[in-house]
Amino acid sequence: MARPIVAFLSDFGLRDHYAGTLKGVVLGVCPDATLVDIAHDIPAHDVMAGALELAACYRYFPPGTVFLAVVDPGVGSSRRGIAADTGDYRFVAPDNGVLSAVFQESAPRKVVELTERKYARPTVSRTFEGRDRFAPAAGWLAKGIALTALGKGISDFVVIDLPRPLADAGQISGEVVRVDRFGNLISNIDRRAFEHLASSGDIAVHAGTHGIARVVATYAEAPAGELCALFGSTDHLEIAVNGGDAAARLALSRGAALTVRRV
Amino acid sequence: MARPIVAFLSDFGLRDHYAGTLKGVVLGVCPDATLVDIAHDIPAHDVMAGALELAACYRYFPPGTVFLAVVDPGVGSSRRGIAADTGDYRFVAPDNGVLSAVFQESAPRKVVELTERKYARPTVSRTFEGRDRFAPAAGWLAKGIALTALGKGISDFVVIDLPRPLADAGQISGEVVRVDRFGNLISNIDRRAFEHLASSGDIAVHAGTHGIARVVATYAEAPAGELCALFGSTDHLEIAVNGGDAAARLALSRGAALTVRRV
Amino acid sequence: MARPIVAFLSDFGLRDHYAGTLKGVVLGVCPDATLVDIAHDIPAHDVMAGALELAACYRYFPPGTVFLAVVDPGVGSSRRGIAADTGDYRFVAPDNGVLSAVFQESAPRKVVELTERKYARPTVSRTFEGRDRFAPAAGWLAKGIALTALGKGISDFVVIDLPRPLADAGQISGEVVRVDRFGNLISNIDRRAFEHLASSGDIAVHAGTHGIARVVATYAEAPAGELCALFGSTDHLEIAVNGGDAAARLALSRGAALTVRRV
Repeated sequence: MARPIVAFLSDFGLRDHYAGTLKGVVLGVCPDATLVDIAHDIPAHDVMAGALELAACYRYFPPGTVFLAVVDPGVGSSRRGIAADTGDYRFVAPDNGVLSAVFQESAPRKVVELTERKYARPTVSRTFEGRDRFAPAAGWLAKGIALTALGKGISDFVVIDLPRPLADAGQISGEVVRVDRFGNLISNIDRRAFEHLASSGDIAVHAGTHGIARVVATYAEAPAGELCALFGSTDHLEIAVNGGDAAARLALSRGAALTVRRV
Repeated sequence: MARPIVAFLSDFGLRDHYAGTLKGVVLGVCPDATLVDIAHDIPAHDVMAGALELAACYRYFPPGTVFLAVVDPGVGSSRRGIAADTGDYRFVAPDNGVLSAVFQESAPRKVVELTERKYARPTVSRTFEGRDRFAPAAGWLAKGIALTALGKGISDFVVIDLPRPLADAGQISGEVVRVDRFGNLISNIDRRAFEHLASSGDIAVHAGTHGIARVVATYAEAPAGELCALFGSTDHLEIAVNGGDAAARLALSRGAALTVRRV
Repeated sequence: MARPIVAFLSDFGLRDHYAGTLKGVVLGVCPDATLVDIAHDIPAHDVMAGALELAACYRYFPPGTVFLAVVDPGVGSSRRGIAADTGDYRFVAPDNGVLSAVFQESAPRKVVELTERKYARPTVSRTFEGRDRFAPAAGWLAKGIALTALGKGISDFVVIDLPRPLADAGQISGEVVRVDRFGNLISNIDRRAFEHLASSGDIAVHAGTHGIARVVATYAEAPAGELCALFGSTDHLEIAVNGGDAAARLALSRGAALTVRRV
């Protein structure tokens, strides 16, 4: 039988021991787990970034994967810890919205608050609940316990407002929600909305105040060094430079306006 | 039976192949090993930082874990390679003190010098003993050989002076020993010493020349953006900013004075 | 039986989900795989750097390892995807030369173009073929299919010109090809060529216009803080500072001239 998979996403970086400590705790509970690092360089305390990165990748893991997502600026406060089951996958995280983008795609069948003390470490640090509460819960799920063993079901888990584009007959007003390592400016405008608008005439794309001359199918279709717009791997409109860094070129970052207008 | 675990800590980063090469060598010796990356972004050549990060996490791994810790500014010199057994865990490292903080908590039962050539690669590079000497030794330990097969026992292994706080009746004078990714300034003052002093009256905390107004139980108890002192996940006094970066705010780094005074 | 190993090298970093997504896809195809991260911080789009890091480490992995190397500035263009068998190892990569340095050492027995659609994901994104084409192919190889199942054999795969030193009777003119995390300037001059020249008289080493006074056997032989030349772990001449950063000291980077002259 295939070994259970636990996949980690955090803002802990690889300079400190925190991410490693999580992994040790999971293996202590479930020594057979296959551990996978998704990303540990989520910007510090950036729940929205964690939510979007997690949502972009979880469906590419085998069913049964347990995800441990720790971006936790409210550690030690009254915010709860939760575990969620979306059918194919289970998730353990602080209850701060870091699962919101996943839930938008895959409505959770069940969410529980992590209250069962026997599935936490005996002492729970108020500054590192990832180690003492979330990692053990993920380990126990990987080991095979039912989600409901971890605590009582809740329905008032935190959902953060993911920025949504505004669309009317002549325009879609979105924004940059992720800037990746390559400087691609990835927006919240999806392909369907764009194609709906574009189907009835010519359109113009602007990133901030910059007009983007070309909409292409892939980076390499734009002349080297030239700005272009395209649909990236999550089927959202992004602004890129073939072989270059669009964010640096345009001095834009998350939150920048991206608009598609009929012309 | 659970597979053996080998956990890696180094200053190799993830830009170069070095950390990956270590892992390949370990798998060549012990193909069944579960590999765990703790941290590879230890500051270059910073033995003290490596020692403290390793000490902060090793106890959270399952008994039997083999740790390979390579922060090795003296590579190729006459400094030895060692392997150590602390009862629950085994460690392989250069003999430069990188295990000192572990040993302070868990006195080693046995330390050997890595002299047995059959457990090293046939040719040992004088600039990358991690690959040719330490990784094979870790792989062999994971595979099940006895520590003493790796070489002769020694007792004069290198121990570095970990900075210790000075305490008298009215004051504890410590210092910042770690600055983590979040900018938390983590000191060498432990909770017991602090509580002893605080039990007999009011106290004042200073980081460098900055007075810290609040001692809280967790980051979230401080108003957003405000400086506070608290005991972090290793039970040492640290200076933090709720949602912010204390190191940047105070322009302090490792070695900065942290004092607790009775007032 | 030992589990199959899949080792990853990319320029995806650990801030975005891309590297994690690759791993999820591989596990979806081959759940028993042992995953190894070699390096994900290859400079963005830097095929040459990826090629050299991969070549520096692959031989240290157990025979049978499958390498997935994704540095892919031409994603979505007409550049092909390939898989290669060098006898002991198999590789999956874009056909852009990222395997060139490996092939220079280990001539491939067989290279195929990734054309067989049943070993790709049903829809192949034109901006993330790593996810949809390369990762599935690596997973299938790990699972045991023959290389030739992935597509038709080709012989016109792309080979990039790796910078080679020029040598004449009195001088070797090389260049810096890698700068590692420690600031070591690693050249393309190998030990044999150097020793041939040095065997017949005194030599002088220059990095850019800087004379390097000492050729040593290891960093620690140079006085602390002093520039030196030595042969590093891949047996190429490098410029280093014992305990310091040669690249920063000399303000040199990749492409800088390194010469060895008879004097």
